[in-house]
Amino acid sequence: MDRCKIEVCLTPAVYETFRNDDAVVVIVDILRATSAICTAFMNGAKKIIPVATLEEAQDYKNRGYLVAAERDGIVRDFADFGNSPYNFTPNRVKGKEIVYSTTNGTNTIMMAAHSHEVLIGSYLNHKALVDHVHHKKHDLLILCAGWKNKFNLEDTLFAGALAESVLRDDRFYTICDSTYASIDLWNIARQDMNAYVEKVAQRHRLKKNGLDDVLEYCHTFNLTTKIPFLKDVYLVTE
Amino acid sequence: MDRCKIEVCLTPAVYETFRNDDAVVVIVDILRATSAICTAFMNGAKKIIPVATLEEAQDYKNRGYLVAAERDGIVRDFADFGNSPYNFTPNRVKGKEIVYSTTNGTNTIMMAAHSHEVLIGSYLNHKALVDHVHHKKHDLLILCAGWKNKFNLEDTLFAGALAESVLRDDRFYTICDSTYASIDLWNIARQDMNAYVEKVAQRHRLKKNGLDDVLEYCHTFNLTTKIPFLKDVYLVTE
Repeated sequence: MDRCKIEVCLTPAVYETFRNDDAVVVIVDILRATSAICTAFMNGAKKIIPVATLEEAQDYKNRGYLVAAERDGIVRDFADFGNSPYNFTPNRVKGKEIVYSTTNGTNTIMMAAHSHEVLIGSYLNHKALVDHVHHKKHDLLILCAGWKNKFNLEDTLFAGALAESVLRDDRFYTICDSTYASIDLWNIARQDMNAYVEKVAQRHRLKKNGLDDVLEYCHTFNLTTKIPFLKDVYLVTE
Repeated sequence: MDRCKIEVCLTPAVYETFRNDDAVVVIVDILRATSAICTAFMNGAKKIIPVATLEEAQDYKNRGYLVAAERDGIVRDFADFGNSPYNFTPNRVKGKEIVYSTTNGTNTIMMAAHSHEVLIGSYLNHKALVDHVHHKKHDLLILCAGWKNKFNLEDTLFAGALAESVLRDDRFYTICDSTYASIDLWNIARQDMNAYVEKVAQRHRLKKNGLDDVLEYCHTFNLTTKIPFLKDVYLVTE
């Protein structure tokens, strides 16, 4: 039996040391990009165009696209709405193509473009991801977006939650220190998620801007079975 | 009261995002560089010259220096002995200047050279480090050497052990996700260190080469009060 390995890359800064073109790569940016993207597709979005810079976002807006863009929690003048998952309501997004501008998330998505598959992961589609990965039988690389190239806790916890679930199928294995660390941290945090997330730096950043209302939502399991994936430079679910 | 912050940089690859020229920086490479360096000074070494490449090490050897150098666990022909802490016995090192060639450790030591202080940390001098950091009242940056720019568990655990001890003095604080993670992992591992270290990737690398006899030694607290520090391009203790 060929076994598939699981690795966790804790920050995009070290992605090259984990690069594995044969792997299914799951991008994780729990607060808030990948949670928002999963929400958008859950609510019927047709396509998401992730862009790294506000200039690109504005350019798309000028060409008539629906644009989600903010920096430091402030919705940009030209944008239709901000980056909170709560903005991606069915009446706004159903059947639409949406441009999504995010600091950490977009570059992370695109750097893995050469992989077997690039999937968008969050608690919202956790079970669907586990089922998909079991079915695919490829190596799994969980790539955390982090915060400006730093490690962050919230992405690491989800990496642990995902790795642990996938490892229940013994066709998968790990010998990766960051995978072990993620699983151990997840098993501490899961005992009282709200309390644990108190100490996450990004929580304080969001709170400062009144944006921490999404915390509980972004840590909710299995609201959708949709798995956004990268197709060319777009995210779609089919 | 001015409070001092503690941060943990989990891999040299993201050092620039943590760079803090006013900080006391503690370099951590538990298996085995910083444990070996602490051992050398404990046993009377006068000076250590850390070098990154084997070419540099050989050049020093040709000039008559005592040289510790190996790669992948094999002592190099030209070297006097290898990189295990057990090689740095009093009869070999007392009063000597020693060249020490290490893959991950040396670059990590030198990249922090602009900081207030660069100290060599290991379990062997844990208490001395804590006392020193409390006395200095500067920010503390714990810089893990990792493994070829990847996160590793053994350095992270020590970072947690050190951060937790320093934080007992409430003039120190942290808001750093990797510090929280390190402390949480340390508190899992400390319950049964030998069992936890079983899963560390570096343990398997060392075992493969018959070099894992140092594991218990490298996790022994407080064998020495000496704190090697960087002075120009050398490590000394006074």
